[in-house]
Amino acid sequence: MTSQIDLAEYLFRRIRQLGVKAVHGVPGDFNLTALDYIKPAGLDWVGNANELNAGYAADGYARIRGVSALVTTGGVGELSTINAVAGAYAEMAPLIHVVGTPSTHIQDGRLCMHHTLGDGNFRFCSEMAAKVTVAQANLIDTNTAAAQIDRCLKACVMESRPVYIELPTNMVKAKVSSEVLENPLDLSIPTDEGFEDTEVDLILSKLYSSKQPFIVVDGFTSRYGISQEADELVRETRFPTSTTPFGKGIVNESYSNFYGMYAGTAGSQVYMPWARGCDLVLRLGPLNSDVNTFGFSTIPDPKTTITFERDSVEICGTKYQNLHIKSLLRRVLSKLDKSKLPKYQPSMDLGDPREQLKALTPAEDKDIIEHDTFWRRMSNFFRSGDIILTETGTPSLGGRDFVLPPHTFLVNSSIWLSIGYMLGACQGVALAQREMIEEGVRPPGRTILFEGDGSLQMTAQAFSDIIRNRLDVIIFVINNNGYTIERWIHGMRADYNDVQPWRYLETAKYFGAPENDPAYPVQSRRAENWGELKAIMADPEIQKGKGFSLIEVIMPQEDAPDVLKKLVQGVARRSSGESDTEQPSNKRQKRDQQSRHVDEKAMRISG
Amino acid sequence: MTSQIDLAEYLFRRIRQLGVKAVHGVPGDFNLTALDYIKPAGLDWVGNANELNAGYAADGYARIRGVSALVTTGGVGELSTINAVAGAYAEMAPLIHVVGTPSTHIQDGRLCMHHTLGDGNFRFCSEMAAKVTVAQANLIDTNTAAAQIDRCLKACVMESRPVYIELPTNMVKAKVSSEVLENPLDLSIPTDEGFEDTEVDLILSKLYSSKQPFIVVDGFTSRYGISQEADELVRETRFPTSTTPFGKGIVNESYSNFYGMYAGTAGSQVYMPWARGCDLVLRLGPLNSDVNTFGFSTIPDPKTTITFERDSVEICGTKYQNLHIKSLLRRVLSKLDKSKLPKYQPSMDLGDPREQLKALTPAEDKDIIEHDTFWRRMSNFFRSGDIILTETGTPSLGGRDFVLPPHTFLVNSSIWLSIGYMLGACQGVALAQREMIEEGVRPPGRTILFEGDGSLQMTAQAFSDIIRNRLDVIIFVINNNGYTIERWIHGMRADYNDVQPWRYLETAKYFGAPENDPAYPVQSRRAENWGELKAIMADPEIQKGKGFSLIEVIMPQEDAPDVLKKLVQGVARRSSGESDTEQPSNKRQKRDQQSRHVDEKAMRISG
Repeated sequence: MTSQIDLAEYLFRRIRQLGVKAVHGVPGDFNLTALDYIKPAGLDWVGNANELNAGYAADGYARIRGVSALVTTGGVGELSTINAVAGAYAEMAPLIHVVGTPSTHIQDGRLCMHHTLGDGNFRFCSEMAAKVTVAQANLIDTNTAAAQIDRCLKACVMESRPVYIELPTNMVKAKVSSEVLENPLDLSIPTDEGFEDTEVDLILSKLYSSKQPFIVVDGFTSRYGISQEADELVRETRFPTSTTPFGKGIVNESYSNFYGMYAGTAGSQVYMPWARGCDLVLRLGPLNSDVNTFGFSTIPDPKTTITFERDSVEICGTKYQNLHIKSLLRRVLSKLDKSKLPKYQPSMDLGDPREQLKALTPAEDKDIIEHDTFWRRMSNFFRSGDIILTETGTPSLGGRDFVLPPHTFLVNSSIWLSIGYMLGACQGVALAQREMIEEGVRPPGRTILFEGDGSLQMTAQAFSDIIRNRLDVIIFVINNNGYTIERWIHGMRADYNDVQPWRYLETAKYFGAPENDPAYPVQSRRAENWGELKAIMADPEIQKGKGFSLIEVIMPQEDAPDVLKKLVQGVARRSSGESDTEQPSNKRQKRDQQSRHVDEKAMRISG
Repeated sequence: MTSQIDLAEYLFRRIRQLGVKAVHGVPGDFNLTALDYIKPAGLDWVGNANELNAGYAADGYARIRGVSALVTTGGVGELSTINAVAGAYAEMAPLIHVVGTPSTHIQDGRLCMHHTLGDGNFRFCSEMAAKVTVAQANLIDTNTAAAQIDRCLKACVMESRPVYIELPTNMVKAKVSSEVLENPLDLSIPTDEGFEDTEVDLILSKLYSSKQPFIVVDGFTSRYGISQEADELVRETRFPTSTTPFGKGIVNESYSNFYGMYAGTAGSQVYMPWARGCDLVLRLGPLNSDVNTFGFSTIPDPKTTITFERDSVEICGTKYQNLHIKSLLRRVLSKLDKSKLPKYQPSMDLGDPREQLKALTPAEDKDIIEHDTFWRRMSNFFRSGDIILTETGTPSLGGRDFVLPPHTFLVNSSIWLSIGYMLGACQGVALAQREMIEEGVRPPGRTILFEGDGSLQMTAQAFSDIIRNRLDVIIFVINNNGYTIERWIHGMRADYNDVQPWRYLETAKYFGAPENDPAYPVQSRRAENWGELKAIMADPEIQKGKGFSLIEVIMPQEDAPDVLKKLVQGVARRSSGESDTEQPSNKRQKRDQQSRHVDEKAMRISG
């Protein structure tokens, strides 16, 4: 027996079927009636304070749960969040954006409606959205609406990017068949045994014959659903392994063949020459952005590289398309004969992050807190199961020094770099983590955010969303009086790089956190030196990560992580025409030339 | 002697020449070097906490000063503010949006840059911007850059809408001639004596022969620069006059022929029949949006209407184009023979707002504060010179009851209706007002904002911008525990219409207001009943409007201004097929039919 159900019910039940448990968004008059269908579909309503934060949170939620949903009203609401949607597109977060729009009668009549430009054009926002989403649907036809929803949801998950669905008010209760709902969307990747044999064998032969191999795990690895395979490849081959900034946290950093981050021109003197000397580089899920490749300096020579993309693999210069990367990697792993692999260990010291951590001298209580040791020392605070977020700016740069325990996950931004994103994302991450711990699909762990003061100010309402939803977070606010990363780029003491000094310790109070609720403890602390910070870190109540903990960490205004200083120096060196230490090959020279054309800004990491 | 100057210098000096004194915006790595040119051009840098608020503030600033400038970084920055730019387009606020973009080498090389989608496309944001701006320029050619700037700036002012200028980092120091700067942009409207004689005479004859005339002043009147002419027309003709919601505050409300707001189906029983019986309606600067016309119910019959648009006038069904509305109106006024005008006074009581105000019984101290009297009573707090802002929601609806003293200005939103806008705009308005008072071009007066709690949460960082710039504001926060306007539309007790309860009285403290600085006094007060509110209103320190005053006004969750209740009732009546009291003419019937097609939502005022 099939029955007729309301279109909004269909939409939200489909979204629930994908594993989404909570819907982010903001109410508005064109979506109110649709919101009535959220709870009955088994979903929670987050209720964000504004749309940009809702979008950021949905992005963060998607990075943990695999997909997320965001509801806004048409016009004002959707445009307020379009920057978040663009970020989700750039960094591949699968986010379903549902936009409540005026009824089809109003749109057909081209009426002069509020939330429009008044010119009868109801399409201009959707035309914008089409630039930052992989599928779009305008649900104006009852006969096709359900199929349109399915098409978009499938594209969202399969392509790991945002989609855009317009739901006119008069279509909320349009009747569609519930029959299709009985079968969840088919999101499986068709596998064809034998189809990838050529590539599998070719890859294996390259692995076996390599003399100085190198694995670089990048961030899209997790978007392609091959994090586990990447980890297994590192563990089984024992090849020297690095991550990019974006890929940090995907591979277990406790493996002895893990050599920290390959930072190109911003890294150690020996690392880049060694990497460029490798005869085989396995690149997984690469993102070639300037900031993720340290000014394009870590992109290896395609001739000696196997690059694993979503649905293709490029083997030493030849691209093989229409592959299913997960099944390809699984077959590489299952056919792998470890005895045939080279037993290679770098002869030079590429740097062992764990040793560097151990070698750190203990901080004196009166020491001020500086970037050169802060980030590495924070590693000791982390525990297996934690999800750690580093905001764009000094936190994302500094966080590259973390030595992560196994089974931690790091969220950072490596191309869109919209400051303020991470605080919004933190709400979504904490929610997804809580849900998944409750469902038993994630180990216990905490949500830990490192946030800059300038970034915090962009999206501070996200604190309200966190508190409203009683989410457990530990937030370190790096207070260095402004956009320090921008100071290093330009205008070290320019007042446009200052920010208004807020009283960050009042955050929980201002945004309405409960006072003395044992179910949601609130802790607000400040550390101006290492003695204070050590005391805070040693506090069991802080360590628990239960409730809302905000720790304001005072750092010198002009201090910055070493990598930022090096990047700025590298820019200056290149600007003056001085070459890098290592003479690049012709091929590389050409590539470098290209990046030399890149002016100052090319090397710049955003504020 | 001409000299070569940097393009960024040219840009900001041109902006300064237009009368802009302060530039709104947020620094970002693609605009940092350009920001160095702001101060030398005689401009101040506002330094907003985020881009959406910067855009809103620039919009507010433009509504007072006539034009404004906004600087963001490309990609992340510009998309964060595009909703504000769209609002400025819809409501005609002339705003110059300068976007710092990567160098032309990077763009030409299609490099995988941060703040992009990583696909080499550097045009997607500008394509979005083109939908909500009236002119665009990408300053990639030194030879044309200055002319492109001039073209955009001129379009901005002349069309009273936003423009979009991309400034690549490597073009900041491109050399252009300073010669053109010696002549400010020609923004004069060419006048051609005699050209408009036909229309002037026709209009005068319509005025003279009318028996029941009516003037409706709408909000674009101020955008077309004819506020003074509108006021004079009302004063000289003594015709019964009304404003729309958007036009409120443009005409001196102390004139005896001013009859408050014509609210169509949401107004008094007698007003609409009377208005529909008028044989001549003069409409100035109309905006036909649903919310500004009370569900299209106040749009008069074109056959008996003279409509003054920016560059056209429609006289009783015939449109005359390519006019200069200001000169046309001036000539109508100069040729006006008052002895030929009808001496008409409505025989029925259309309602005198001043009398209604006087008739209000005094509030008892223990009375709770409710919408039915709050807004009208607030009128006694206003003084000549004040600028008053009413946020979309209950404040904008309630504020229609204000009886404004002469020479006050009201800012509200009447089509874009993006909640949170008004708090951002308040910063820009307060800044523009301060500048203009200092320059002696505005009388002394205060900036007074009425803000809803849900709206406040959208853009709360604007408080920080206000405090950072030490702006003088009085802000009434209507705390009714959520989106009350949405409750009336749908979901009276649905939790999606709740908001997180913030501790609003902590606002000044949280955002870093000085404690005990006599130059910037801070006052935070709460009123839960009329006794408390009266005490606050009577406090001379509050009345001064100096420094930062925030007054939290507690109102019942489900209380709303009468006009909102009536609008909702009207929707219900129309939905049930019941007709309005007055039988419309055939022509009107057709138009009403159209609005009857408009479903429930058409009548809805946004959250």
